[in-house]
Amino acid sequence: MTTFGESHGPAIGCVLDGVPAGLTIDEEYIQAQMQRRRPGQNAFATARKEADRVEILSGVFEGKSTGTPIAMVIYNTNQKSKDYGNVKDLFRPGHADYTYWAKYGIRDYRGGGRSSARETAARVAAGAVAKLMLKELGIEVRSGIFQIGDIVGEKRDFDYALKSEIFALDPDREEAQKAAVLRAKEAHDSIGGAALVEATGLPAGLGEPIYYKLDAVLADAMMGINAVKAVEIGEGVHSAELLGSQNDDEMGREGFLSHHHGGTLGGIGSGDRLEVKVYFKPTPSIFKPLKTLDIHGREVVCELKGRHDPCVAIRGSVVAEAMMALVLADMVLLNLGRKMDDLVRCYRREA
Amino acid sequence: MTTFGESHGPAIGCVLDGVPAGLTIDEEYIQAQMQRRRPGQNAFATARKEADRVEILSGVFEGKSTGTPIAMVIYNTNQKSKDYGNVKDLFRPGHADYTYWAKYGIRDYRGGGRSSARETAARVAAGAVAKLMLKELGIEVRSGIFQIGDIVGEKRDFDYALKSEIFALDPDREEAQKAAVLRAKEAHDSIGGAALVEATGLPAGLGEPIYYKLDAVLADAMMGINAVKAVEIGEGVHSAELLGSQNDDEMGREGFLSHHHGGTLGGIGSGDRLEVKVYFKPTPSIFKPLKTLDIHGREVVCELKGRHDPCVAIRGSVVAEAMMALVLADMVLLNLGRKMDDLVRCYRREA
Amino acid sequence: MTTFGESHGPAIGCVLDGVPAGLTIDEEYIQAQMQRRRPGQNAFATARKEADRVEILSGVFEGKSTGTPIAMVIYNTNQKSKDYGNVKDLFRPGHADYTYWAKYGIRDYRGGGRSSARETAARVAAGAVAKLMLKELGIEVRSGIFQIGDIVGEKRDFDYALKSEIFALDPDREEAQKAAVLRAKEAHDSIGGAALVEATGLPAGLGEPIYYKLDAVLADAMMGINAVKAVEIGEGVHSAELLGSQNDDEMGREGFLSHHHGGTLGGIGSGDRLEVKVYFKPTPSIFKPLKTLDIHGREVVCELKGRHDPCVAIRGSVVAEAMMALVLADMVLLNLGRKMDDLVRCYRREA
Amino acid sequence: MTTFGESHGPAIGCVLDGVPAGLTIDEEYIQAQMQRRRPGQNAFATARKEADRVEILSGVFEGKSTGTPIAMVIYNTNQKSKDYGNVKDLFRPGHADYTYWAKYGIRDYRGGGRSSARETAARVAAGAVAKLMLKELGIEVRSGIFQIGDIVGEKRDFDYALKSEIFALDPDREEAQKAAVLRAKEAHDSIGGAALVEATGLPAGLGEPIYYKLDAVLADAMMGINAVKAVEIGEGVHSAELLGSQNDDEMGREGFLSHHHGGTLGGIGSGDRLEVKVYFKPTPSIFKPLKTLDIHGREVVCELKGRHDPCVAIRGSVVAEAMMALVLADMVLLNLGRKMDDLVRCYRREA
Repeated sequence: MTTFGESHGPAIGCVLDGVPAGLTIDEEYIQAQMQRRRPGQNAFATARKEADRVEILSGVFEGKSTGTPIAMVIYNTNQKSKDYGNVKDLFRPGHADYTYWAKYGIRDYRGGGRSSARETAARVAAGAVAKLMLKELGIEVRSGIFQIGDIVGEKRDFDYALKSEIFALDPDREEAQKAAVLRAKEAHDSIGGAALVEATGLPAGLGEPIYYKLDAVLADAMMGINAVKAVEIGEGVHSAELLGSQNDDEMGREGFLSHHHGGTLGGIGSGDRLEVKVYFKPTPSIFKPLKTLDIHGREVVCELKGRHDPCVAIRGSVVAEAMMALVLADMVLLNLGRKMDDLVRCYRREA
Repeated sequence: MTTFGESHGPAIGCVLDGVPAGLTIDEEYIQAQMQRRRPGQNAFATARKEADRVEILSGVFEGKSTGTPIAMVIYNTNQKSKDYGNVKDLFRPGHADYTYWAKYGIRDYRGGGRSSARETAARVAAGAVAKLMLKELGIEVRSGIFQIGDIVGEKRDFDYALKSEIFALDPDREEAQKAAVLRAKEAHDSIGGAALVEATGLPAGLGEPIYYKLDAVLADAMMGINAVKAVEIGEGVHSAELLGSQNDDEMGREGFLSHHHGGTLGGIGSGDRLEVKVYFKPTPSIFKPLKTLDIHGREVVCELKGRHDPCVAIRGSVVAEAMMALVLADMVLLNLGRKMDDLVRCYRREA
Repeated sequence: MTTFGESHGPAIGCVLDGVPAGLTIDEEYIQAQMQRRRPGQNAFATARKEADRVEILSGVFEGKSTGTPIAMVIYNTNQKSKDYGNVKDLFRPGHADYTYWAKYGIRDYRGGGRSSARETAARVAAGAVAKLMLKELGIEVRSGIFQIGDIVGEKRDFDYALKSEIFALDPDREEAQKAAVLRAKEAHDSIGGAALVEATGLPAGLGEPIYYKLDAVLADAMMGINAVKAVEIGEGVHSAELLGSQNDDEMGREGFLSHHHGGTLGGIGSGDRLEVKVYFKPTPSIFKPLKTLDIHGREVVCELKGRHDPCVAIRGSVVAEAMMALVLADMVLLNLGRKMDDLVRCYRREA
Repeated sequence: MTTFGESHGPAIGCVLDGVPAGLTIDEEYIQAQMQRRRPGQNAFATARKEADRVEILSGVFEGKSTGTPIAMVIYNTNQKSKDYGNVKDLFRPGHADYTYWAKYGIRDYRGGGRSSARETAARVAAGAVAKLMLKELGIEVRSGIFQIGDIVGEKRDFDYALKSEIFALDPDREEAQKAAVLRAKEAHDSIGGAALVEATGLPAGLGEPIYYKLDAVLADAMMGINAVKAVEIGEGVHSAELLGSQNDDEMGREGFLSHHHGGTLGGIGSGDRLEVKVYFKPTPSIFKPLKTLDIHGREVVCELKGRHDPCVAIRGSVVAEAMMALVLADMVLLNLGRKMDDLVRCYRREA
């Protein structure tokens, strides 16, 4: 996947290469995935409204993938650049303004430009295609929010999450989590949160040793999402507290007898449920004065106006789900023919 | 970096490409780095003894790098394969035995083969070369252990860690941490732990947007180390609990006024101290009976003998330090000429 | 560079990553380059008319590159799909119809789909940006046609080629070459040709040993252009006939005393004029009946109608020039800091 | 494949990743391939004697590949560095001495260092493993010499070439070709030549559109071999002279009715015989005085002594064969599951 585009440019999009030919590309399904990430739908996300209509420019013919690159474009319909006028020359704390400036010497003040979370819409579109492919193989990827601020849910009801306005996994904690978001919003502040992403129906053996381990590539994919500051697999941080006798998963004829490993051992998928936790920092944009510098090196005060997500984790969970789908689709293709006799058999069929 | 080799084969090694020509390759320094990771030195690591002598096969001429690939080989001198005889056909719980079997249909029973932590010796050798290069640019990478089991240190004394047998960062907690390791060892068990890796002297601007973000690539590098189950940057997991007003780092003329971001913003380095926490699960090899399967699908009991690290995090911290050095060296080279006027200036000098 | 799109889909385009920030993006210049490749301009190219208007979707802000991916789209305005109705199910000889069918099991009959030469328009747009960057460094890339059928020019007048309708390098042979094209066209046939691409103003040292040699990467870039069947550097095919004493280029204080090597030695650029010859087969589409198969395996006769270039080499030379520019821009960036003291100097400036 | 090593360092070698598990690694076969490229065997190659014994360091267990990287090392046993003493500081014409100096500022005078053709021994070892894999799939790669100087053979007897001291494909021209080599050798000169590399038993569909075309990747692989200056596929250079009606290959029920395309159409393999011609310049090392510069910029005369191949094409043909095998093995693996229904079928078998 290659993405392009900035939050306030004419369009964002992606080019997805390597999709096998003959996959039915259900555009309604793609649009439904976009809808989940789309802003402007309720009080828990930014009021910025974007149609987020995906247009397929290539790689699909008569409803099926052709095997060639699938290009998808999403036009930006709501480019309210003036909202950003008063922060034109200063570095918004917690944003990439300063680091991009340091790197490129250019201040694209229109809402973060390339570093904006808007870019992730293109990832959701690409992830939707990956999910269509995985579905044909019986692999399902799902996500939801288990934590907002210090309110941590325990239940993991992915079906419930699909319908929840904040994608809450634990119905019993949903109200408290919603209240925390609104409290932050009303205080002109923002709040952190965390998502659980899970894949089921996996074969054992995904991932390549050393250079393209399943866990390493997932960590890369997740940490690369805007605002993510930590990634855990299985027991994660907690594993450092455990003894080997507490953490080792024994096996019986039905498979693993416990699930501390989270689906990867030695960087290779075990076939067991794959579990990744992704932690998002609070949206850096808050509506309180903050000390900062401008591009001339002067100390100034940043006072933001505009529309921002009070809790970027919520929509971020949809992006994390898309990223896992992209990683798994890639791993499935890479894993074909890893045993010589499978290679011979597949090859004979295809040749 | 490309590594090769298995724990009980004749040798392991690596090929490191992209090192600029003319770097003084201090072989004693490389050997000293190897020494830090080397097993068999005290009660806190495996009794397996390896000389871990690095031999340079190419890419160095008259003490300096030539710009061409540097190949380094470490011969395995202590290949006690018989220790593994009794686990020849079964999947050791918590190891990659099962996943490699599922993927490749081959059971290289000699201590994990390619998935053995022995492979990481090659990374330390490569990391030592990267550290030599970074040193010339004023960049320093350091590491240490802040947590063993549930004993979490607070101080961060990297100089102390260098001399500590368990690389402890907090002298006040070192004894308790050592005791925890020995307790696990005596109970034929193992214990988890966590390392802090830090880089200082960095310029702002390292990392490439979207596809090669500094934080994402670090997460990949760290999660790919054997036994790592979680990676945090800056506030990490904790950031999900915070409000924006607590997490945003304000800036003044002297730089950042706080340090929640851990050195990256929007995936690009801020020039501030880079802080990554890496969590290791307890060594899966313990000397207690565990239920498992063998390659014929039979339920069996795994009873390990041999020599193992009671706490893999300790030596793992040296590997994590090497990985950060490799990532930063790469990022520094990639970042050259990111601004057109720098490109013109550099190019004119060189051309 | 990533390109996407098919000849008869809604659009083609490309995403160009790695352009340094602060490069002035002269849209008129880009459009002028497109104009050179654009069909429908005279009797020597296909009558198919395309506006080939490049729209920049990202990566440019206030007329300058931002350092982030530049996405460019060219909408297909002239999608006469019906022209292809009568060849819907058959494999046009010399085209990729059969090989794509064998690979993907899909017959996108609309003019070759992804394998159409229309995709190369996106390369010209990307190449134009590369040329803008190279110009700032004093590097110039030029091209022209030296051969049509068996009429081989001797002179190499690149300025003349710019104005020639067939980009002829040799004014004395232009008329004969034009006549050969028209003769083929009138006979409902097509004809082969060959282009010379040259770069001047280069530094010595471009290209990476073994894995990314300048000559190897150029060969890849050129052979990957539609219809190209041979690539030569310097003496090329002729070098096999020579003695070492005839082919070795001696050096004096002013540089090389002869120019058999064509600008690369050992895969690394010598700084001397870089000369690549690219040979194009005749356009496979001819308007004579040819035996072929259809997707059902039946023997059928292919009788094409429509509009095609009688000599694909002519417009192909513009594509070859763009590809060389892209390769050189990449090589220049990769070459920064290859010597440790240059690295230190550049790094200090930038940091 | 990653290779390392210099001609006069302690060893050269390669790391080959991606080999499926369970392939029988026939070490005698690998050694036999090495033998074909090995110098010092007759009057037509350099007198430098190398045992060229391949030692496998990893990736093979009990005679079979394990799926993990296969590292192979070849120790340099004959490092006569003193032969090069008199050319220590000067740039040998036609060699990479000058370009490496320009790039790296280092003059590794021991026989070209990394740019020496000695590096290609590692490629032959890797290619032998690729050939073992392809053999299991019914794919065969062969090579031979069709041209030495201006003596061009017509017959293509690959079996004969295997036994010929100069790998001649045409028994009728072998004597004349041998005589040309010896004549050059006696005149202290060298001579160019050209190899034909062919693959049979291929499926249609190898190669990826646009970014990894079969013809482009082959051109890259071949042009990257030391001394190669031109690469042709099918009609190659000659295709520029032809009309479409002469060059298009018609198809019938038995397949292609002619073979101008050389096995690729639109960058994708047609399943027909794959034919690549590779042109080698004469060995630059000749024993006649040549004007050149030294590293201090002084005009000097280069007078070489030592042992060199009078015709580098001969042993080069073995390298070209190895490179084609490596490219095809890669392409076969990449092509698995390109159609969705094949993917589902393969995946089900393997999962």
